[in-house]
This record gives sequence, C-alpha cells and structure tokens, in this order.
Amino acid sequence: MSRVYNFSAGPAILPEEVLKEAADEMLDYKGSGMSVMEMSHRSKWFQGIIDDAEADLRELIGIPDDYVVLFLQGGASMQFANIPLNFALPGSGVADYLVTGQWSKKAFQEAGRLITANKVASGEDDNFTHLPDCSDLALTPDAEYVYICENETVHGLKFHTLPDVGDRTLISDMSSCFLSEPIDAGKYGMFYAGAQKNVGPAGVVIAVIAKDLLPEGDIAGVPVMCQYKTQADKGSLYNTPPCYGIYICGKVFKWLKAQGGLGAMKERNEEKAALLYDAIDRSDLFKGTVVKEDRSLMNVPFVTGDPDLDAKFVKESAAAGLTNLKGHRSVGGLRASIYNAMPKEGVEALVDFMERFELANK
Amino acid sequence: MSRVYNFSAGPAILPEEVLKEAADEMLDYKGSGMSVMEMSHRSKWFQGIIDDAEADLRELIGIPDDYVVLFLQGGASMQFANIPLNFALPGSGVADYLVTGQWSKKAFQEAGRLITANKVASGEDDNFTHLPDCSDLALTPDAEYVYICENETVHGLKFHTLPDVGDRTLISDMSSCFLSEPIDAGKYGMFYAGAQKNVGPAGVVIAVIAKDLLPEGDIAGVPVMCQYKTQADKGSLYNTPPCYGIYICGKVFKWLKAQGGLGAMKERNEEKAALLYDAIDRSDLFKGTVVKEDRSLMNVPFVTGDPDLDAKFVKESAAAGLTNLKGHRSVGGLRASIYNAMPKEGVEALVDFMERFELANK
Repeated sequence: MSRVYNFSAGPAILPEEVLKEAADEMLDYKGSGMSVMEMSHRSKWFQGIIDDAEADLRELIGIPDDYVVLFLQGGASMQFANIPLNFALPGSGVADYLVTGQWSKKAFQEAGRLITANKVASGEDDNFTHLPDCSDLALTPDAEYVYICENETVHGLKFHTLPDVGDRTLISDMSSCFLSEPIDAGKYGMFYAGAQKNVGPAGVVIAVIAKDLLPEGDIAGVPVMCQYKTQADKGSLYNTPPCYGIYICGKVFKWLKAQGGLGAMKERNEEKAALLYDAIDRSDLFKGTVVKEDRSLMNVPFVTGDPDLDAKFVKESAAAGLTNLKGHRSVGGLRASIYNAMPKEGVEALVDFMERFELANK
Repeated sequence: MSRVYNFSAGPAILPEEVLKEAADEMLDYKGSGMSVMEMSHRSKWFQGIIDDAEADLRELIGIPDDYVVLFLQGGASMQFANIPLNFALPGSGVADYLVTGQWSKKAFQEAGRLITANKVASGEDDNFTHLPDCSDLALTPDAEYVYICENETVHGLKFHTLPDVGDRTLISDMSSCFLSEPIDAGKYGMFYAGAQKNVGPAGVVIAVIAKDLLPEGDIAGVPVMCQYKTQADKGSLYNTPPCYGIYICGKVFKWLKAQGGLGAMKERNEEKAALLYDAIDRSDLFKGTVVKEDRSLMNVPFVTGDPDLDAKFVKESAAAGLTNLKGHRSVGGLRASIYNAMPKEGVEALVDFMERFELANK
C-alpha cells in the first residue's frame, strides 16, 4: 500500500489514524459484534457515538449551551434552500447575501428562488480575486439575516475578519475552514459545514444554530425534513441519520483533540499555508490568484499563466504522488487544498516538486 | 472478533464479504493511494464506482433504459415530501395514498401538508394486521399518482400482488424489500429505497424514475435539491453525493450478482421466512401479528402476549448473540428482520433459540 498526498478540495484527505481505526472496527465495533454501518440508529451503541461526537465538537469549538448541534444530510446545497426557508418567511422574507465566490453565489441564487435575497456586496466584477469592501455594508432594514461563505473553496478566499453586521444575525457557510482554527461561536446565528472537507466523508452536514433562531411552529409548505426544528427536537434522530459518516466525524473530532485542539490546528495550518504561499510568491513561474490579505489557509489556487504548462504540472505531480492539484474549472490553473489532515510533509513535498518543476520548465 | 446475528430492521446486517473488502480497501482503494472517503466525486475513481453501481443495479433488476437511477440523500422521509412536490403541483395537486402501516402513513401525512392527499385505502382500523382490500380502489379522478409502501418494515406487511391502479402512475417505497426478489420495473412510475435495510449504510436513497415523469422545468418555490430533475440531469453528481455509501451499495450489488441475482435471493428469502413463520405457527407461545397472506418475507413481527416475557426474550436472545429482536414501540413484542444478508444459519439459530425459550418458559 502506498498512500498519496491528496490535495483534493473535497471529498478530501482524512487522518490516516482515523482510517486505520475505522478499518480495524469494520466488522466488530468495540465488541458489539457488528459494523457501525449495521447498527440501529436507536441502539445504545450508536447513541454513544453521536453523543460523543456532539460533546467533542462542543468542547473543540466552545459551543454555548444555547446552540443546537445538528447532523444533517443533503450537503451545503440543501442548506442553501433550508436557510431562507427556516429563517425568512418563504415567499415574502428578505435576507442579505455577501457574494464572494462560487459558493456564496450559489447560496444567493437558491435563496433568490425562495425569498427576496439582496446582494449587498460582491467580488464578482474582479472575478473573486479579493473580498469586497465590507466596512460599511448597506444592509437591508428588514433583512432577517446576513449570509457569508467564510472560506470560498473554489476561489481560495477567506474572511480573516468577520464583516460588521451590527446586531443582525450572521449565518456562515464554514464548509472548507471548519475546525481549522478557533472561532467565537457566539458571533453567529448559525454556522454549518459539509463534512467532506475538514471533517469526514461526504453525506454529513454539521449545523450549529442559536436555539432562539429556530422557528417555533410548523412552516407551511416546507418539507418537514427541511425544517431545522425537526432534527433539533429529536437530537438529529428524527429519521435514520448518516450513521457511518457521523462515526467518522466523531473520530476526527477525537483526533483534533489529540492534536491539541483548534489553536494548535491554526498554528499548523498557518505554517503549512506560509510554506506554500511563500513558494508561490518567490517563484517566477507560479502566481497566486488571490490578494494576499484575503488568502485562504485551506484552498490555495495558483496558475502558471499557461494552460498547457498547468496541465503538465497536474500530470507530473500526480505521477509523483501529489494528486488532485487541478484547479476548479471556473478558475482554471492549479489548486492545492491543505486541510487539517494534510501533514506538513505533504506541503513540503509539493513545494519541493514545484521548485523542481520550475527549474525543468524555464 | 465475534459477529452476532443482527436482526435489526435498519440500519441492518450487511454481507460479511462486503465489510471485509471495505476494510481491506480503507486506506488504499485499488492502488489509488486513498480511501474512497477521500476521493473527489469528480475523479475517474469515483465515476467508475458510481457507474458500476448503476450498471449492476440495472442488470440485477432489469431496469428499462427509459428510467433514471438516482443516488440521493435525506432518507425515505425526504422523499415523502419530494414525491408530491415533483409529481403533483405543490399546493393544488392531488394524489392517492394506500395507508398500510407506519411508513405509508407518514408519507401520506407529509404529502397532506404539501398537496391534497387522499387516503383511498387503510388498514389502520385493524392496527395494520392485514392489507386493506385493494380489489376495487376508488381512485380520485385527477390524482397524479397512487402511492404505496410495498413492504411495511414496522408492521411486517407485504404487497405480494400489486394493487390494481389501472393506467395510473404507481409510486412505491420499497425500502425494506428492495432487491429481495425480482420485480417488474415497468409497472412503476417510480420506486425507491433507503439503502440502510437491504443494500448498504444509512445516508443513501436509491430512486428509479420513469424519465417521462420528471417535471421538465423548474418547480417554483421548491428547493433545487428537492427536484429530482436536478440529480437526473447530472448523473446524481449535481453536488457531492454520499460517496462512501454508494461505494458500499455497489459492493452489495456485486455480492447479489455473485449469489445468483434476485431470483436466487427470492428463493433464499422464502426459505428463511418459511423457517421462521413455521416456527411461530407451530409454537404455543409465539404468535405472528399479521395474517398469513400478507406477511412480509423481510420483517417478521411476533409476540408472546406477555410484555414481561417479550422483554425476557429480547434480553436472553441478545446474550445468545441474536440481537435487535425487540419489536417497534408501536407494535410491541418482537420483530426479526431477515434481509438478504441474513444467512439461513442466523434464522436457524433464532428458531432454535425460540424453541428452547418456549420449553424453559412453559
């Protein structure tokens, strides 16, 4: 067996220790005589798994008691609809969106089908190479919430400071920066993440929502499964949850605690990102696509400026065991996603390869 | 490691061979250098997995080319809403429901929140101990479809003959009898199954839909992710699918082919069910709760009539390595789910235990 350094934007690299444990427990989870995949979600075994996962996540982030933690399905794409349907009146409600890359744009578009969604800032005119000025946002007076994508996976942008939304409810898609650094949970009305970037396998969404934001009654015309209260009332067990994915997420949470928690991850992630961005900045061949102050620590897009050379880089790097470095089709070029589970050695190997590639292609 | 015989109704027992392969491939899928959990859903690796899964499923069932096969999320509970929203006009559409147990009742209730849902037959007055007479259904003239749950997991009922719906569109929840026997796909407008019973881990729903039933345009007010056309247009890859679950389903499809296909499974399932029902019928202690002609081959509810004795049975059987035999809280008593992956030896062990239990508790 030979493991590669996998720079995929998601689904993405997972800690090898987690995968080894999962393999060891595949046929018999801790003496239960069955795989976690085979367990009733109503069993004490699975209840222990989901309870532990929630407790570890609460401890890692420091989630206040007046927030619920939900394990959901449907990806971020499903939340793009659920958020307006839960937090603004379907049909007539209003919300503000900051459009800073592909994912916030998609969220804005879906909200616009269901409520009145106002674009109060956009980086699209500059092809999402920097964040728009958020120092004096013209928020809509009756907007129910302000929506951001905190780290744009495709375009490689990160809000290093949250936009000032005053006393408005801030809702954040954290999919690609989730658990990569400490956050102040209390600043958000809701934050959520698709698991398949920093946390686990695809098919699980983790949502953290202030309890007083949850609608109290049934929302007419909205599927019961799209109402956050449905799962909030039942500890994410209204129906059968994606049990195995939650189990893997729980293992990643324990792994993060063993690494020293989110403060330690932030240090490691800053160190890894600096290694890669420094290599890009000192190169004559590679160029970063995002202004320095808005660069993501997780998703690093860069280009040579020559699509043929980009393609050659993708091919040769893959042959060298550095995989999934092709940029997203909407940006082109190259992209390295260096999530929590990417070891520093992986980034060093990439930098080393980039230097050799540059020398060979002068 | 000691595996139990797991009679859980879902998530449920999986073939041991499948779990062993999954464990072996956990850190390196076929030389890719990564786990299937870590793979981009846009990679050739994953495309191969989902293509194979669809092809094997089409072959197993004999799915005509004018049907799409979708791998979805949200469980059957999400489809309870998606079906009326896709196949009847939200708000004003009409559909007919046959209420034959807990799951069709839930589907009916959710549809009733979103469209006009008519209950055209019900077994509720008799506590779902037999199927209602479906020989002369009073279908609603303008109903868009007729909905059934073909095998009721909780109540243990099965439509051994499909109800006569004339030229109406029949939609069937097959979650707990999926792939347990050959079917005639062409009789349905849509059939679907949550994977966590006969096919794989929770978090995947497989839906097979006649192409001409799919709405052509956008359905106003309905989340893009709730519109079947969204995934149908993108080969289930509109957004990141539950990749690992699909991979396990694909392995189960290959396992089913190796067992001889659905005809062979039907024989084995009939043999297993006969073993268990015969034991119940000749017992003085245990009684089946469903009339003989409507009994499920997959979910076998039975009772002693004494809740304390039922509880004793659950406890002692678990200690003997026969787990999850407690009946659903709405029926009480005992229930053995004997899906495809339950070996005949498991049913024999259960029958043997039942006989010893009866002798000891005369």
